[in-house]
Amino acid sequence: MKTPRTTPSRLAKRARYDDKTIHPILDEALFCTVSYVMNGQPMAIPTAFARNGDRIYIHGSVGSHFIRSIENNVPVCITVMLADGLVLAKSAFHHSVNYRSVVVFATAEKVVDEAEKMHALALITDHLIPNRWADLRPTTASELHKTTVLAFSLTEASAKLRAGGPGDDPEDVDLPTWAGVIPLQTIRATPIPAEYNTVELPHYLM
Amino acid sequence: MKTPRTTPSRLAKRARYDDKTIHPILDEALFCTVSYVMNGQPMAIPTAFARNGDRIYIHGSVGSHFIRSIENNVPVCITVMLADGLVLAKSAFHHSVNYRSVVVFATAEKVVDEAEKMHALALITDHLIPNRWADLRPTTASELHKTTVLAFSLTEASAKLRAGGPGDDPEDVDLPTWAGVIPLQTIRATPIPAEYNTVELPHYLM
Repeated sequence: MKTPRTTPSRLAKRARYDDKTIHPILDEALFCTVSYVMNGQPMAIPTAFARNGDRIYIHGSVGSHFIRSIENNVPVCITVMLADGLVLAKSAFHHSVNYRSVVVFATAEKVVDEAEKMHALALITDHLIPNRWADLRPTTASELHKTTVLAFSLTEASAKLRAGGPGDDPEDVDLPTWAGVIPLQTIRATPIPAEYNTVELPHYLM
Repeated sequence: MKTPRTTPSRLAKRARYDDKTIHPILDEALFCTVSYVMNGQPMAIPTAFARNGDRIYIHGSVGSHFIRSIENNVPVCITVMLADGLVLAKSAFHHSVNYRSVVVFATAEKVVDEAEKMHALALITDHLIPNRWADLRPTTASELHKTTVLAFSLTEASAKLRAGGPGDDPEDVDLPTWAGVIPLQTIRATPIPAEYNTVELPHYLM
């Protein structure tokens, strides 16, 4: 939603507020950074997350200082960034980055319903490793009680994107310097079995 | 440096304070997230950066709301995270992430010396694209004046890392579920020339 704090002061043409833009970015990014304020000091922690409709979940140990700092009505700023490419112009000044980013302003809602909590953990697990949850032994009541799940509304979320090639000044276009985009990709390399693993690699990890 | 706010409350064994650990993480990461407080509200922006000895530089337009918000003695928290792998255990509870992260607490120092400013822009450019700066036409005085460079001391920086395989509960070790690590890597794909590019791809981009 477009609000004063989700409206960028510069390059507003890069901003988007529709779910069709915001949701796929959140679904593709593996990690987010949660920023909050403690005694006037900014603090930030990278963490895993998952989207469920118009909310996102994060989780952590019930004893985590980070989780305890934000679980009770503390405003957070959650950022996600997918770096799609390095944009090389003929001048340093016009170098840029192709990216898709999301910023969410929200306040945590602690998930107390056990079924929703379990569902959130399944979503966070499957967000990082699709189809993993169904291959795992059930999470125990004790494990669930050791874990806090926080939900954040996406009501005040915005996306910002850049795509495409460089934009050089007309007088630079013929300079003898290569210009274009170097795409960046995150890949999953060959899985490394644990020392105690005796199980064949399942299809969903291939 | 180890200070109260750089000392994690949990998993303190994962924390490091030595340059030998911190500097390579900063040098490998392409982007950082800068968090700050505005009217009590946490704000965060992903941006490019570069390390120069025991400081890091970021840059932005002199008109950037973000840059103007933090250039005058505003505390920031700068985070960097390299996600090295997804750690798959036999229980959801013991799933984890292999990562190398750095958190820096600092306050911006505006770089006014023009030579240092130019050097910072060269470092930021070459951090993203090694050897690029030398292939570019000189940055003009006008371009330099449109750009703000901020420096941040690494005095209050700390790193946190996890590496290695999963740690399952002894009673889970023989469960018929694959356990191990899925390495994550960021790769640079085949460069895409700009429409107006007529120059061969240089060696430093191959």
